[in-house]
Amino acid sequence: MNFHILTLFPDMILQGLSTSIIGRACKAGQVMIEAVNIRDFTQNKHKKVDDYPYGGGAGMLMQAQPVYDAYLSVLEKIRTKQRPRVIYLTPQGQVFRQTMAREMAKEQDIILLCGHYEGIDERVLEEIVTDYISVGDYVLTGGELPAMILVDAISRMVPGVLSNEESSERESFEQGLLEYPQYTRPEEWRGKRVPEVLLSGHHKNIESWRMEESLKRTRIRRPDLYKAYLEESKSETGL
Amino acid sequence: MNFHILTLFPDMILQGLSTSIIGRACKAGQVMIEAVNIRDFTQNKHKKVDDYPYGGGAGMLMQAQPVYDAYLSVLEKIRTKQRPRVIYLTPQGQVFRQTMAREMAKEQDIILLCGHYEGIDERVLEEIVTDYISVGDYVLTGGELPAMILVDAISRMVPGVLSNEESSERESFEQGLLEYPQYTRPEEWRGKRVPEVLLSGHHKNIESWRMEESLKRTRIRRPDLYKAYLEESKSETGL
Repeated sequence: MNFHILTLFPDMILQGLSTSIIGRACKAGQVMIEAVNIRDFTQNKHKKVDDYPYGGGAGMLMQAQPVYDAYLSVLEKIRTKQRPRVIYLTPQGQVFRQTMAREMAKEQDIILLCGHYEGIDERVLEEIVTDYISVGDYVLTGGELPAMILVDAISRMVPGVLSNEESSERESFEQGLLEYPQYTRPEEWRGKRVPEVLLSGHHKNIESWRMEESLKRTRIRRPDLYKAYLEESKSETGL
Repeated sequence: MNFHILTLFPDMILQGLSTSIIGRACKAGQVMIEAVNIRDFTQNKHKKVDDYPYGGGAGMLMQAQPVYDAYLSVLEKIRTKQRPRVIYLTPQGQVFRQTMAREMAKEQDIILLCGHYEGIDERVLEEIVTDYISVGDYVLTGGELPAMILVDAISRMVPGVLSNEESSERESFEQGLLEYPQYTRPEEWRGKRVPEVLLSGHHKNIESWRMEESLKRTRIRRPDLYKAYLEESKSETGL
């Protein structure tokens, strides 16, 4: 799977994704991450890529031309018949969810476009973007961190990237519930003991303890997910 | 404002936040970002920081002791009378929002705890964590990118970090609506012209065009926000 990231800060992307599991997946050739510097494509002699917004307002906008030409340079490399998916990271997008990560992991090539300053000229977005995606309802200084979030979330869904040890069958959101608390050695730490049931070796009891804890935690911390889970269970059991 | 980040991947944090606006804020002394390597605090002779979960299940868990001692090392440096805010980045948390960024920007010190592998032993979380925060409903390989998201979103709310040019009064989510489309030079690009109203210099018309576009976009892309906005306007006008 290949990620092509159009950005003004290629170093930030490459360094931030070079460690740990994603770094390992790149070295193993399971995932390829390429950062394309939009500034390399400007036709402005001072290498400028931004200008003031028409109609007034604070901040600068990235211009259409360098973004479009950076995009064309990636298209030439890919040479697929289908138009690739081009994701623009923006607070003005659909909110990213785990189901989207799973679905996008099936693509061969994904182009991620990172805005900076106040955003990007609308005309080039209309021309090239297929998906507008937001990682959450907050404002950031640029699209680079959101692009890294997508690369991380999608990559770990690519078969082979996570080892068997790492891929939990029961992961957060898979059942629509938050995960139960977890404990590791030692059995006692600062006077706190691991719950007895986890030391019992009684798998059925462990399962039901974990399910109860998941339900309790979801109800308290994420009433929205809890409500959706209850409605889902009702409809499954036909009630 | 000081961010103390407890992590197994300090380089990823420091490199990923060294560029652009946040890098500038660090150089100017408006923001301090420190990455504390949890592995430096393990008492295990092989520098191991993780072990198997009690009760079975896939993956490894980070142990309580190194996390706790890394936390104590930050406390000693801070020497405040109040217990500092300790945020654990986890999908099992409250979902981060722009209002939280604004509120957290008032703190002097924030400690961010990044989990890796399957998570962290629950007992140390109970002991030190004040806030459980999720950046969205998706699963990542670790808490490092979410921590960087928080540092970025919170830092730009710290007075002086954004220049006047950069700080838009009308930002996404400030009014509960998505932003309107923006355009910059040239007036015509690949046959697409900037909407005439933006070239008119008629401020009132520009304002109402932008408001209409914001409403339209929010209605189409984020019906949840649109509904909340309508309810809010109703209650404000007393209808």
